[in-house]
Amino acid sequence: MKNTFGNNLSLTLFGESHGEFIGAVLDGLAPGIPIDDDFIRAQLSRRRPAGKISTARREADEYRIVSGAFEGKTTGTPLTILIPNTAQHSKDYSATRSLARPGHADYTAYRKYHGFEDYRGGGHFSGRVTAALVAAGAILISALCDKGITIGTHIASCAGISDRDFSDIAGEIAALNSKDFAVLDDEKGALMRAEIEKIAAEGDSVGGILQTAVLGMPAGVGEPWFDTVEGVLSHALFSIPAIKGVQFGDAFNMVNGRGSDYNDNYYISDKEIKTTTNHNGGVNGGITNGMPVLFSCAVKPTPSIFKAQNTVDFFKSEDAVLELKGRHDPAIIHRARVVVDSVTALAIADLLVTRYGTDWLAENE
Amino acid sequence: MKNTFGNNLSLTLFGESHGEFIGAVLDGLAPGIPIDDDFIRAQLSRRRPAGKISTARREADEYRIVSGAFEGKTTGTPLTILIPNTAQHSKDYSATRSLARPGHADYTAYRKYHGFEDYRGGGHFSGRVTAALVAAGAILISALCDKGITIGTHIASCAGISDRDFSDIAGEIAALNSKDFAVLDDEKGALMRAEIEKIAAEGDSVGGILQTAVLGMPAGVGEPWFDTVEGVLSHALFSIPAIKGVQFGDAFNMVNGRGSDYNDNYYISDKEIKTTTNHNGGVNGGITNGMPVLFSCAVKPTPSIFKAQNTVDFFKSEDAVLELKGRHDPAIIHRARVVVDSVTALAIADLLVTRYGTDWLAENE
Amino acid sequence: MKNTFGNNLSLTLFGESHGEFIGAVLDGLAPGIPIDDDFIRAQLSRRRPAGKISTARREADEYRIVSGAFEGKTTGTPLTILIPNTAQHSKDYSATRSLARPGHADYTAYRKYHGFEDYRGGGHFSGRVTAALVAAGAILISALCDKGITIGTHIASCAGISDRDFSDIAGEIAALNSKDFAVLDDEKGALMRAEIEKIAAEGDSVGGILQTAVLGMPAGVGEPWFDTVEGVLSHALFSIPAIKGVQFGDAFNMVNGRGSDYNDNYYISDKEIKTTTNHNGGVNGGITNGMPVLFSCAVKPTPSIFKAQNTVDFFKSEDAVLELKGRHDPAIIHRARVVVDSVTALAIADLLVTRYGTDWLAENE
Amino acid sequence: MKNTFGNNLSLTLFGESHGEFIGAVLDGLAPGIPIDDDFIRAQLSRRRPAGKISTARREADEYRIVSGAFEGKTTGTPLTILIPNTAQHSKDYSATRSLARPGHADYTAYRKYHGFEDYRGGGHFSGRVTAALVAAGAILISALCDKGITIGTHIASCAGISDRDFSDIAGEIAALNSKDFAVLDDEKGALMRAEIEKIAAEGDSVGGILQTAVLGMPAGVGEPWFDTVEGVLSHALFSIPAIKGVQFGDAFNMVNGRGSDYNDNYYISDKEIKTTTNHNGGVNGGITNGMPVLFSCAVKPTPSIFKAQNTVDFFKSEDAVLELKGRHDPAIIHRARVVVDSVTALAIADLLVTRYGTDWLAENE
Repeated sequence: MKNTFGNNLSLTLFGESHGEFIGAVLDGLAPGIPIDDDFIRAQLSRRRPAGKISTARREADEYRIVSGAFEGKTTGTPLTILIPNTAQHSKDYSATRSLARPGHADYTAYRKYHGFEDYRGGGHFSGRVTAALVAAGAILISALCDKGITIGTHIASCAGISDRDFSDIAGEIAALNSKDFAVLDDEKGALMRAEIEKIAAEGDSVGGILQTAVLGMPAGVGEPWFDTVEGVLSHALFSIPAIKGVQFGDAFNMVNGRGSDYNDNYYISDKEIKTTTNHNGGVNGGITNGMPVLFSCAVKPTPSIFKAQNTVDFFKSEDAVLELKGRHDPAIIHRARVVVDSVTALAIADLLVTRYGTDWLAENE
Repeated sequence: MKNTFGNNLSLTLFGESHGEFIGAVLDGLAPGIPIDDDFIRAQLSRRRPAGKISTARREADEYRIVSGAFEGKTTGTPLTILIPNTAQHSKDYSATRSLARPGHADYTAYRKYHGFEDYRGGGHFSGRVTAALVAAGAILISALCDKGITIGTHIASCAGISDRDFSDIAGEIAALNSKDFAVLDDEKGALMRAEIEKIAAEGDSVGGILQTAVLGMPAGVGEPWFDTVEGVLSHALFSIPAIKGVQFGDAFNMVNGRGSDYNDNYYISDKEIKTTTNHNGGVNGGITNGMPVLFSCAVKPTPSIFKAQNTVDFFKSEDAVLELKGRHDPAIIHRARVVVDSVTALAIADLLVTRYGTDWLAENE
Repeated sequence: MKNTFGNNLSLTLFGESHGEFIGAVLDGLAPGIPIDDDFIRAQLSRRRPAGKISTARREADEYRIVSGAFEGKTTGTPLTILIPNTAQHSKDYSATRSLARPGHADYTAYRKYHGFEDYRGGGHFSGRVTAALVAAGAILISALCDKGITIGTHIASCAGISDRDFSDIAGEIAALNSKDFAVLDDEKGALMRAEIEKIAAEGDSVGGILQTAVLGMPAGVGEPWFDTVEGVLSHALFSIPAIKGVQFGDAFNMVNGRGSDYNDNYYISDKEIKTTTNHNGGVNGGITNGMPVLFSCAVKPTPSIFKAQNTVDFFKSEDAVLELKGRHDPAIIHRARVVVDSVTALAIADLLVTRYGTDWLAENE
Repeated sequence: MKNTFGNNLSLTLFGESHGEFIGAVLDGLAPGIPIDDDFIRAQLSRRRPAGKISTARREADEYRIVSGAFEGKTTGTPLTILIPNTAQHSKDYSATRSLARPGHADYTAYRKYHGFEDYRGGGHFSGRVTAALVAAGAILISALCDKGITIGTHIASCAGISDRDFSDIAGEIAALNSKDFAVLDDEKGALMRAEIEKIAAEGDSVGGILQTAVLGMPAGVGEPWFDTVEGVLSHALFSIPAIKGVQFGDAFNMVNGRGSDYNDNYYISDKEIKTTTNHNGGVNGGITNGMPVLFSCAVKPTPSIFKAQNTVDFFKSEDAVLELKGRHDPAIIHRARVVVDSVTALAIADLLVTRYGTDWLAENE
């Protein structure tokens, strides 16, 4: 299905960086979900670049919902979001059209699309396409929140500086979702920002780790093989440009420990079954256990840097040197956070709608 | 689609640990692919437990191909593999039926299947089901090999001991695939085995990291959004019991570096476009770039341990203590390796068949 | 997905006429659905040939459920049905291997599978594969019945003789489902059988029309575009060998009338909204309206006849004459009926599970 | 997947009659397919109402391709078509909002969407949405034509008048595709138009039968079970408003004949294998045999008529009388023709791309 994700609640992404619109079609939405335009705008503004640690390209992100909504609510038919592209600088790109930017998709796009791709500004690979994802995700995040399911992501690590761990997730999710630079410990956040500015001044870039918590997931969701919660989430998350690793719970830490360290023991708390620890990230055998779903994404350093790089001209098949100009992000981790939340909402909502039926997302309990 | 994976070449897994058969249906195979029974048997034997570092349950794994093959070749119709279960000890499990084994899927299965699940020996969640996956994967691995695409996995880390890195991948894949304990450096492998035996003697368990290389993947395969190579592979890989993290290239290492460290520069080598390093694991923008596809899976410590553990009885909703008896693996990483290769073959073959058409897998170039 | 049908409740068919087993995997079943072995056997016996109007090949159809059921109920994991093939006469087929039987799939199979197909007895195209479909369908028919949804099919027309129309559908469905030769008017049925015997004696064959009613479908199921009730049902129904046409309500009759004749007017009956007529077969705009879903399938004359036919040898690419011997059905319409019911149950159950969630099929209201 | 059709080449439809845009996303297109704007406009104009036998609503159908095309060719990324709605008369509909128009989807939409549907002008159910389908289909029809595959549909029957049969399909397809009222025999066409005008003057409506031929389909395409050529095509075709029946070849005629009448005998013609007749419509066992694919669609009389009709008010749950005003089609068969061609192109192209790979549609042989 290529640029579509989801079995029963699906999202189709379209658009190029320098086309007329980027956009998304959300299908399988329950009828009657309120469209909260203030929240959509707020989420888009969190994804939008700002300040010295982001690209200078600024888009108004004036989205339009052109189908699937009526009188402020979803109709249940495909909901289409359009976001016009307005701030393109097309001439920036033509000179370097056949120079493969290292770490970017120029060369792979050329091998896949044989030169017919719209190469301007990264085309369909541009991070700009995530604006449509965020607008669509905002509708789902609101709807999930009304069902008692909340999602929050913090910058667990960036430029060698680590945020503190989640401790009281419910309150922390709320706090994170009102921040532009999402860390649990704002002092660590200030250090990260300072470091990103320094790296930007050197013409270089940096990545980091985003950790996400999903609170309120009912137990018993997911499948034992293939459509595991981990499989479905990671499938969607790897779409986000720069994400190269996904782990659930303490995966890459657990590898050096023992079963007796990392088995999450069960206990009864207030008549509910819980685990004392959550090293497995709320998922056993591919299925939720009722604990918070916890996962981390490795975000690689933004590939656009201002240092000269060796590369090739893939039209001429010869070595070349590339010096990027234009507008670039020294870090995208603070912007990617809201994209991770959006993709998570999509994957989670699809799992829930598959389990509980089409109308579930709009039903009052 | 639940227990099915793949768009154009798909695998459906079925069976329970103590049912009559476990099995798999492979659909979308090209007609005319040779069935190499010796290789299927060899792969099954690599998955099978052996020696002090594995469970004492031994199955003959006498598979039967009951449809989709004729006169030693695939017919192009659904190929069904059955593997009888013969070594079940059903009475081992009934006493602890409602005690949730920490780290296992007993409790999540109960929440999903409401008590109707076949709980004996882990039921449909049992690692035993991977035998069918391995038999099916063997057919795909052979076919991919005939197309010049080879897959190899080594135990990159186990019990705190690290194997060396890949250096000459083609030869190393061949070497790994003839080993029962797949490491690049056999001295490190001996240390790992000794450590596993020690941990087993303590009644405990251990995990590790498996690193996989896919050689020969053509450039230009995969999609920019959602059906990225990373997304499709990780979706399948997270099905493997105990895998909790997947990273491509150096993902979780790159997070602390700079763009200038980790952008893989392109160059021309013998008229082909290559990269000097491969931190991105052969994938840019979700699409293969022609370099080896490299990824690592975090395998958590096997949850079955012989130490007393606190847990709950989920029928009675009360705290309980669990002491496991029976047959268990202190480590599964050496057995999981061949499962990773099989799942990789499935995901890769599906991407290739989607790109090049139904018959591609059996075509001579 | 090729040999799989269904989005949330899916069936995968496998097997060849002369292989070890034919079978089916049903995935997405709710846990806790009772397995009614008597009903499965009864349905299989209705599909099985009997008497002078059927082929002489007799199979015991001793099915085995080898996964997905435990203590008489579904577990919620993939349910696999195996039916051994026991009555094959392999040598019947080898002589005519490359002679395309007119109206059969020999030549198209050869073009698709390039000669690797298992040609014996029609291979994967054999009507025998429908035995697995019927066994799986029986589980769904029982489960739907427990939810108040019943399915019945009668031979509306055969050999020029027409059955009467449905009048009191609920009672008629019950009556049909206990008959071996499913007609509403048994006198018409006797005439049809006599006619089929006469045609059989001439070495020829005959088709007919099967009309199906689904009672109890809730209003509001189906999608406006693509996954319309008509589209989903017809997609599945055209799998049944010999079905070449599907119409809903009075489709091919309506084409010559006026809107004023065929619009089904609504009225209130006992506080429920109904239509005075049902020319649209219970579906408007792709979505059920609460009236019985009615459709008809055109079954072509069985292609196996005992008269000499002109054809080609597709190995030699030359004209040839074919004289069939062996065991063949002069009519399959009386056997196909139960296959139509099974396929209908699959398509309907998938639509309902998609709408109401995974567990719906086993839930008590 | 709801409003999406296709496995490897997929179309997602969105929009409401009175929304800002209707549109479509085509994904899975090969890169490099030329966009022929003149042909798209011509196809849209054939779908557009004209003259006395159509509704008075006139839309300019000024489509815009806002993604997936660059410099006049497809890029290989999702291609999005937007068509603005400009001629809405919203106030026409509010008065009758809760009166179920017989034969329409008002009541079923209400049951599915619980009153949140955009009811104006039929909303998402409006035939207007087919404009987007036709624009997308035009791109596919052009591309298929470049591969030697042509599609043509004629009005085989309307208002009791029958067109003649296909005789020389290649030339006839070309002729049909340049006509606004697609019949093989223009005298019969004139009679049909006169009859439609007469019926329109009576405030009534009429349907008919559309017969379609696909020429140039290679043999060996389609699957034996479920994804049969018939199943895939009918699934898509039943989306077209008013289509209630689909038959392949002579399906509903064959039911009363004998096998010896309707088996299509094979013969060698100029070294190719052909059939002397084509009662099976070019498909055996779900797979193309290389003969023209032939099928017919039953189009019911347009449900909007100007006669008073009994119905219900579904808000008040009481009987009511409806008198439609506004703009309606007395017949849509002449407009539906180009929609059938478009849907056919989609289903056929998806089957071919599945078989031959992603790039096939743009490859020069």
